[in-house]
Amino acid sequence: MKNLLIIGAGRSATALINYILEQARLHNFFITVADADITLAQQKVGNNPNARAIWLDASKPNDRRDIINRHDVVVSLLPPQMHLEVAQDCISLGKHMVTASYVSKQVFRLGDEARQRALVFMNELGLDPGIDHMSAMQRIHQIQAKGGKITAFYSYTGGLVAPESDTNPWHYKFSWNPRNVVLAGQGTAQFLEDGKLKYIPYRRLFRQYRIVNIPGMGDWEVYANRDSLLYRDAYGLQDIKTLFRGTIRHRGFCDAWNALVRIGLTDATFPIVDSDKLTYHDLMEAFLGISQHTGSVKDRTAKIIEVDPESEIMDKLEWLGLFSKRRIKVQNATPALILENLLLEKWSLQPNDKDMVIMQHVFEYEINRKKHKLTSTLTMKGSNSTDTAMSRLVGLPLGIFVKLLLLGKISTTGVNIPIMPEVYEPIMQELEQFGVKFTEKEE
Amino acid sequence: MKNLLIIGAGRSATALINYILEQARLHNFFITVADADITLAQQKVGNNPNARAIWLDASKPNDRRDIINRHDVVVSLLPPQMHLEVAQDCISLGKHMVTASYVSKQVFRLGDEARQRALVFMNELGLDPGIDHMSAMQRIHQIQAKGGKITAFYSYTGGLVAPESDTNPWHYKFSWNPRNVVLAGQGTAQFLEDGKLKYIPYRRLFRQYRIVNIPGMGDWEVYANRDSLLYRDAYGLQDIKTLFRGTIRHRGFCDAWNALVRIGLTDATFPIVDSDKLTYHDLMEAFLGISQHTGSVKDRTAKIIEVDPESEIMDKLEWLGLFSKRRIKVQNATPALILENLLLEKWSLQPNDKDMVIMQHVFEYEINRKKHKLTSTLTMKGSNSTDTAMSRLVGLPLGIFVKLLLLGKISTTGVNIPIMPEVYEPIMQELEQFGVKFTEKEE
Repeated sequence: MKNLLIIGAGRSATALINYILEQARLHNFFITVADADITLAQQKVGNNPNARAIWLDASKPNDRRDIINRHDVVVSLLPPQMHLEVAQDCISLGKHMVTASYVSKQVFRLGDEARQRALVFMNELGLDPGIDHMSAMQRIHQIQAKGGKITAFYSYTGGLVAPESDTNPWHYKFSWNPRNVVLAGQGTAQFLEDGKLKYIPYRRLFRQYRIVNIPGMGDWEVYANRDSLLYRDAYGLQDIKTLFRGTIRHRGFCDAWNALVRIGLTDATFPIVDSDKLTYHDLMEAFLGISQHTGSVKDRTAKIIEVDPESEIMDKLEWLGLFSKRRIKVQNATPALILENLLLEKWSLQPNDKDMVIMQHVFEYEINRKKHKLTSTLTMKGSNSTDTAMSRLVGLPLGIFVKLLLLGKISTTGVNIPIMPEVYEPIMQELEQFGVKFTEKEE
Repeated sequence: MKNLLIIGAGRSATALINYILEQARLHNFFITVADADITLAQQKVGNNPNARAIWLDASKPNDRRDIINRHDVVVSLLPPQMHLEVAQDCISLGKHMVTASYVSKQVFRLGDEARQRALVFMNELGLDPGIDHMSAMQRIHQIQAKGGKITAFYSYTGGLVAPESDTNPWHYKFSWNPRNVVLAGQGTAQFLEDGKLKYIPYRRLFRQYRIVNIPGMGDWEVYANRDSLLYRDAYGLQDIKTLFRGTIRHRGFCDAWNALVRIGLTDATFPIVDSDKLTYHDLMEAFLGISQHTGSVKDRTAKIIEVDPESEIMDKLEWLGLFSKRRIKVQNATPALILENLLLEKWSLQPNDKDMVIMQHVFEYEINRKKHKLTSTLTMKGSNSTDTAMSRLVGLPLGIFVKLLLLGKISTTGVNIPIMPEVYEPIMQELEQFGVKFTEKEE
């Protein structure tokens, strides 16, 4: 096995492509990078003799199958809803497949077929999901190996801005998909505490955050993810009492974000007709609902969301330009899309800005009735707005896994996520060479 | 045209069937009542010589088409999602069709075909939608006929309990679909005020209610409907400055309902696993989220929704039994379904309870720069829990329309709602004989 196909050459592909092109020289792999934008693919490939760029419209089944058929392993970096078709091709053509995306129900159902044909379909091989699974499973297996019984597991991840590039009152800049940030938490968060299921609906999610200390980095806010229970069985923690997954944000972020939620700006369910004819000021006025004719739109907004007009929360909203008489640029957009576009202007990494990723796992466990606590923390900063910590941490696990697969070192067939030692051990070990190292604290 | 088919003989069919059976004797109509529950259909038909009951599983296309083909007019009282198939049958078999439901996009698209075949497809012929359209259009046309320009239109409807049967602290009992009450308002309400679009997201909907005076009935709360702008064009009010539709509730209802929303109990998006193994007390505790170990679940709930533990709001929650250690009866149910089942126990009309419907329209208009205001109010009480005001006001307009159609008095073909004089004039006039009379006040 030598031939690798990477479908999709966008921003998230850079770290993966750079890594695997390096490896291609050493191991004589041949890499094809396919994208609907051939220039993009060519830029990523450069003049590497072990690689080529090709044009591919992945929505055309014949073209797609043709290309897939000429490779041994396929990495799909396509939008998640397109993975299923690629997976079906890989099944029928007998190819291995790798993604960084969540396993959809439809892809999950291909598991038996993949196993029967001895095919490896590995998913969730990025940062979160990805490194979170691998680093957690490594420690869970270590604790279990020495006879420990895990009673609680907390896991937090944040894609943040490095303190030295933190130049705005929200203390946040985008290092990944802005849409996911705007829509985060819609629905009801579920987790387990002291053996009891707990629910936090969206309307209280950004009010009921925890304060978490990250060694050397001070205190941060953590709000609950929707999916804390999703991996209970996969991690082998069926009897655990407390299981909580959350997202890390800077102090002050959650209260201010909650203000945006309360106003209604994260609603993606209805379009605002002719939104491009409105100013942000008009939009805010529209959300005041039934008229209360005294005071400025800013003061009336403060009243409706029940915060002090002089509070930092209102300063943050003002800094975004929500009360400015500037025109909205998007047409017939939902409030969420208008907000996303505004935040893209305000929260973009500048060329020399550094992002920062923090991941922390806390395990509480017992050995012979004695209580232990293990805190395992990863922090990583990027170099600039292109070589971000986020893109490295998403791309490198994918790259290392693909190398292992091409070298014939992976035996786990079927549709899986990286929770088995043959996957996480070599990946976590090699990641250390790239500075991906968890700091441990035992109590 | 003599042969009428009514598909569906449930509770909402009673007033319609009673009315049309009366008319059948006078005009020699023949009525078929079809239902999957033949006993139910037989009860409704009784021994009327002009009618028969038949068994029909409306989801079976062949059976359905067979029956439809033997009639001239079809009234569909099926669940809304089944109207489309009936409508397609009626198009291909050349039959007229009548419903009390909202016109779906798919049914709307059949308009040209219906017109080409000279078929009448009349919808939204109940109370709301139905009588609201007809009574509003009657007044809009009257105001326009005397040269008035309408600047504002407010329209409120409430399906309520009559004061003499109001025996609970919520001052509410169900007279119609409980599910619609539990899910009411999810999304974002839109309306028009002083020429500007206004939005109220769900999380503020039950806080931003208006107080409306109903002559002789005191003050009531009104929260905004989602669809205030839906009929702007249909009503011919393209240039109106203020357009607001709302739902009427008793004073104190909205604040208490908002508490249920804040807790998270109206969420229909996720199932609570093994909900039948929990008590209501457990459920409330689960919604407290991150533990705050002091105080009772009731006091901690009050804290989390920011209300005084001794307030009337908390009394209403307690009266529902939300803090009781009684088992929940439904399995793997969403919070909304658990709430719906609990409310069904608590808010059901008792056999001799009377319901009450209130509808009010307020028009502001100008004639020769002089400002006028017309308030038009309908109140109606039922006789008992079977002969409700609600069922009469939904069934009678349908019945009267069907009579007019069978007598050849309707000329408006295509897919429509009842906004034309040939429909609303005779219906509103005949409704007066049943006590459906709006009281007018001019200012």
